[in-house]
Amino acid sequence: MKNTFGNNLTVTLFGESHGEAIGVVLDGLAHGMEVDTCYIKKLLNARKGLSAVSTPRREEDDFQILSGVFQGKTTGTPLCIVIKNNDTRSGDYALTKDLARPSHADFTAECKYGGFQDYRGGGHFSGRITAPLCAAAGIIIPALLKKGIKIGSHIARIGEIADRDFCDYDTDFDILANKEFAVLDDSKETAMIEKIKDVKAQGDSIGGIVETAVIGLPTGVGEPWFDSVESVLSHAVFSIPGVKGIEFGKGFSFADMVGSLANDSFKNVDGKIVTETNNSGGINGGITNGMPVVFRTVFRPTPTIAKPQNTINIKTKEDAVLQAKGRHDPCIVHRARVVVDSITALALADILVTRYGTDWLSE
Amino acid sequence: MKNTFGNNLTVTLFGESHGEAIGVVLDGLAHGMEVDTCYIKKLLNARKGLSAVSTPRREEDDFQILSGVFQGKTTGTPLCIVIKNNDTRSGDYALTKDLARPSHADFTAECKYGGFQDYRGGGHFSGRITAPLCAAAGIIIPALLKKGIKIGSHIARIGEIADRDFCDYDTDFDILANKEFAVLDDSKETAMIEKIKDVKAQGDSIGGIVETAVIGLPTGVGEPWFDSVESVLSHAVFSIPGVKGIEFGKGFSFADMVGSLANDSFKNVDGKIVTETNNSGGINGGITNGMPVVFRTVFRPTPTIAKPQNTINIKTKEDAVLQAKGRHDPCIVHRARVVVDSITALALADILVTRYGTDWLSE
Amino acid sequence: MKNTFGNNLTVTLFGESHGEAIGVVLDGLAHGMEVDTCYIKKLLNARKGLSAVSTPRREEDDFQILSGVFQGKTTGTPLCIVIKNNDTRSGDYALTKDLARPSHADFTAECKYGGFQDYRGGGHFSGRITAPLCAAAGIIIPALLKKGIKIGSHIARIGEIADRDFCDYDTDFDILANKEFAVLDDSKETAMIEKIKDVKAQGDSIGGIVETAVIGLPTGVGEPWFDSVESVLSHAVFSIPGVKGIEFGKGFSFADMVGSLANDSFKNVDGKIVTETNNSGGINGGITNGMPVVFRTVFRPTPTIAKPQNTINIKTKEDAVLQAKGRHDPCIVHRARVVVDSITALALADILVTRYGTDWLSE
Amino acid sequence: MKNTFGNNLTVTLFGESHGEAIGVVLDGLAHGMEVDTCYIKKLLNARKGLSAVSTPRREEDDFQILSGVFQGKTTGTPLCIVIKNNDTRSGDYALTKDLARPSHADFTAECKYGGFQDYRGGGHFSGRITAPLCAAAGIIIPALLKKGIKIGSHIARIGEIADRDFCDYDTDFDILANKEFAVLDDSKETAMIEKIKDVKAQGDSIGGIVETAVIGLPTGVGEPWFDSVESVLSHAVFSIPGVKGIEFGKGFSFADMVGSLANDSFKNVDGKIVTETNNSGGINGGITNGMPVVFRTVFRPTPTIAKPQNTINIKTKEDAVLQAKGRHDPCIVHRARVVVDSITALALADILVTRYGTDWLSE
Repeated sequence: MKNTFGNNLTVTLFGESHGEAIGVVLDGLAHGMEVDTCYIKKLLNARKGLSAVSTPRREEDDFQILSGVFQGKTTGTPLCIVIKNNDTRSGDYALTKDLARPSHADFTAECKYGGFQDYRGGGHFSGRITAPLCAAAGIIIPALLKKGIKIGSHIARIGEIADRDFCDYDTDFDILANKEFAVLDDSKETAMIEKIKDVKAQGDSIGGIVETAVIGLPTGVGEPWFDSVESVLSHAVFSIPGVKGIEFGKGFSFADMVGSLANDSFKNVDGKIVTETNNSGGINGGITNGMPVVFRTVFRPTPTIAKPQNTINIKTKEDAVLQAKGRHDPCIVHRARVVVDSITALALADILVTRYGTDWLSE
Repeated sequence: MKNTFGNNLTVTLFGESHGEAIGVVLDGLAHGMEVDTCYIKKLLNARKGLSAVSTPRREEDDFQILSGVFQGKTTGTPLCIVIKNNDTRSGDYALTKDLARPSHADFTAECKYGGFQDYRGGGHFSGRITAPLCAAAGIIIPALLKKGIKIGSHIARIGEIADRDFCDYDTDFDILANKEFAVLDDSKETAMIEKIKDVKAQGDSIGGIVETAVIGLPTGVGEPWFDSVESVLSHAVFSIPGVKGIEFGKGFSFADMVGSLANDSFKNVDGKIVTETNNSGGINGGITNGMPVVFRTVFRPTPTIAKPQNTINIKTKEDAVLQAKGRHDPCIVHRARVVVDSITALALADILVTRYGTDWLSE
Repeated sequence: MKNTFGNNLTVTLFGESHGEAIGVVLDGLAHGMEVDTCYIKKLLNARKGLSAVSTPRREEDDFQILSGVFQGKTTGTPLCIVIKNNDTRSGDYALTKDLARPSHADFTAECKYGGFQDYRGGGHFSGRITAPLCAAAGIIIPALLKKGIKIGSHIARIGEIADRDFCDYDTDFDILANKEFAVLDDSKETAMIEKIKDVKAQGDSIGGIVETAVIGLPTGVGEPWFDSVESVLSHAVFSIPGVKGIEFGKGFSFADMVGSLANDSFKNVDGKIVTETNNSGGINGGITNGMPVVFRTVFRPTPTIAKPQNTINIKTKEDAVLQAKGRHDPCIVHRARVVVDSITALALADILVTRYGTDWLSE
Repeated sequence: MKNTFGNNLTVTLFGESHGEAIGVVLDGLAHGMEVDTCYIKKLLNARKGLSAVSTPRREEDDFQILSGVFQGKTTGTPLCIVIKNNDTRSGDYALTKDLARPSHADFTAECKYGGFQDYRGGGHFSGRITAPLCAAAGIIIPALLKKGIKIGSHIARIGEIADRDFCDYDTDFDILANKEFAVLDDSKETAMIEKIKDVKAQGDSIGGIVETAVIGLPTGVGEPWFDSVESVLSHAVFSIPGVKGIEFGKGFSFADMVGSLANDSFKNVDGKIVTETNNSGGINGGITNGMPVVFRTVFRPTPTIAKPQNTINIKTKEDAVLQAKGRHDPCIVHRARVVVDSITALALADILVTRYGTDWLSE
């Protein structure tokens, strides 16, 4: 469905980086959900990232809710949020607009759209389009919280520097909520920021990993086969620009584990069924087992770098050398964690609403 | 959509491991596609795996096409394939039916279906339901081949034993097509089989990785955002039982790469735009760039093992010890590669048919 | 979605009139729903119609449930029902297979499927494919009944002969449930049957109208815009072969009504909000208002008739005269009422399950 | 899918009558389609209707395209159009906001949205939301025209006054294109306008029928069963507020026709297969046969009238008398014809794009 995601609670994205505006339509919302515009603003700010290690393009991200909210609450009808593009310097792109940025979408967009795409700043492929996604999640995350469902992500890796693992989710989520650079181990935060500054100074960029946990999900949610929780979450997460891999629980480490060590034994603790370990990341057979859902998402280094690169001219097809101008992120991992949280909230809310009915989110 | 996958070319799965029959409905097929029942049979046989290291349950997998084929060609109307269950020994499950197999779907199925699920042999969660998926792919893979699109998977890892990487795709695909145990490096084949026999002897199981490549895809296929090629393929692949991670191109290795080394430079080789490296796995911005699409799928060790395991009784909620009976696979990776190929074919065909129209597959 | 209908409770149809078998997959069912095979059989028999005025092709319609039912209850996983084709006399069609039956789908099928369609007995276009639809509804109708939702249809018109209107729905539904020829006014039954016999004797066919009512639906069900109750029901009903019109409440009579007479005044009767009249057919703004949902469906006369007709040969494109052989229905209205009931039940169940959640039907 | 319509070319509506803005997102568009803002404006003006017989609320309908267009052509990415609400006089509704307008959506909205709906001017149920639909169609209709596909509607009936039938479609479409009040027979135009003025003077409203024809559609378009052309068009058309019935070809007149007179004989005219009559309205078995697709849509009289009406207070549930204020349409049929054209264009374009591929509309 291209730019619409979800079966019953749907998100429709629109907009280009340097066009008039970007936005989102949320449909299938329950009526009577509180809309906290401060919280939405907070998410949008968090998405901008720590300024020292993020793009100098600083959009205000002043959003406007065009529909679906009346007297501070959702009406149940489609909620449209629009964010104007203000800080656009399209001139940056004019000179190099025909030079395909390696590993960016310039070439594939040309192939797909035959030259009619808006090339400025990545157009519809721009990471900027994640801002409306976060705004939409700003409606959903508080509603999930009221249901006891909490989502948190930390920067698990920047380059070779690794954060500590999640320990106590509740406490760790509180730590992360107040961090501009979402690392659990403060000493690693400094090292990561240094690393990013370092690659930036070299005109380069760096990749990393975001680790996400969700606690408080009911058991029995998800479907066998095509709507497994892993299927739906991975579908959503891979739509974030720069994502190239996802793993649940032990993920790729399962490759050399034996079943007797990989399996999560069940036990009854005070009447609640839990597992001894959580190697499965809270999902068995595609369905939640009540343990935290845990997954890790890898982000490639930002493709746009200052270093000169060999490429082609997409119009003439001739070889060329690209020396990128424009304002770029040397790393998107620290900004992306808000986006991962957001799209996780949207995808899970859709699963839950499908299971429990349209009105569930505000019941 | 639960048991239906695809937007325009849809696959609907049904059936339980020990029920009457399992099957699939393929809808949205072009008319006039050749139906090669020998090829379908070949895929189904390949899915059974090398007998020495696979479950002793050996179903004949005699399939019957109930509709959608007339005089050997597709009609364009829904094609239903049914496979009877014959070699069922439900008795194996009667004794332990209330004991949740750790990391299997028994507990989550109970949570979701409230005790009404067919527990025998995993019911609808059984890997056996992948047989109709492969049968459906048996219609699609030859049609893609006629379009010059080839798909191949090898067993990249069993435990710590790694196969060599893909080298020349065409040649390697030919090698794999004729292998019962799909490893490119013969010396690793022996080691892997030994490894599986070894864990089996210990009443245990082992995980692994399947690596898949697709060549011959047109450029410009896929969508930005929610229907990126990665989103659609991961959605499909995570529906295969046992999958816990997927990565495209360099995948998780991107975490500590810098952009200048990670980026794939474009160049013009005899009029064709190619990339120097293929770290992106053939996909930029969610859209194919004409290079091979490459991804790796990790399979957890089979959860059903012979060793005793701590668990709970799903009816009484009391702690218990499970000593599994029944016939199990000590490893599913070598069998799963056919399933990964199949679901990849189905997912890509849907993307292509959406782009080029309903009749494209037989044009 | 071609042969799949529904968002959350989906029906997938497959099969051809003279192929191996026809069938249906129901997905999104609640677990624990009772499956009454006698009731399914009863619906299938009712669909065959009064033998004196129906096609001499009398299929046994022995159905088999392949999946989704365990120990007499739904498991919650896809339920597949298959009905074998036995009484096929394809020879009837061989002679005239290239002559397009006027107003039948032969010519359009040729245009769409390029000659690859199964032409025998109408293939996938055959009214016979409604049998699995009714079988599927045989699972749903009893579940709706437990919720207090009742559906009933009568033959409102055959030719110029009109049945009386619904009077007391509950009583009238009881009358209809036990009728082989579903007319409320017995005197009209005789006249209608005579009419059908008469046109049959002339080698001709006749059209008619089915009127359907649904009582017991909750208020507030349906959606503004694209999933209005009228939109969803009409989508479903127009998929029945032979339907050429549908109207809700006063329908086409609204054309010359004034608002003051057309509007249904609300009033409070013992705490329940009802309307004085029900011209709107229970739906305002696409959403149920608690009054009976009432609609009328017109069926064209069966296109296959014994009289000679001018037509073309679809292979040679030359003009030709068709003298149809084969076994035909002189009227399908009396048979179709079961199909209208069935598809209404399936469409409404999907709307309700979307609103109230997956498990609602068995709660 | 609530406020999204279409499988591959999707329309998503949002907005409330007296909210900030209303709008639409079109997704799945081909790239390179010309965007003629004058034509869009023309459609929006036509939708406002002849001022003498339409609501005194006269919105400027200044629309803004926020995304999806670059240098005057579609990019292929989602196209969002927003229309601000300016001429809102919400005060009109404050006094009577708790009194359910009979046959309007006030009561059902209350049932569905539990009091959180935006009640002003009908909120999301307002006919005003059809303006963005028409704007979206303003992109599609010219593209269909380039393919030789023309759509036209006339006011077939207002009350008991009937227009003449379509005669030569091409000529008649030209006549209608330039009419503010779309009647083919000028003498009937005067009578209809008088009729509307008359009911308006009485504080009442009147219903009517719109007849629509589509010429130039390819043969073989549509699907058997759930995506028959009738199913898809009726689904779309019933989402227009006030529609209570639709019939294709002879529609309800089929009820007392015999097959030999109802059937459309095929014949070969200079190599083209046509039918002698077009009783089927261009559709056999759900699929186009190359003849004009013809259907009639009935609109109920506008429920909002000036005459006092009995009703209830939706908050107190007590009986009440409503004397409606606000600005109303005494008839919507003449305005609705543009909406029927628009939604027909959108629904058909989706069917065509599904069949012929994403890029077809601009090829």
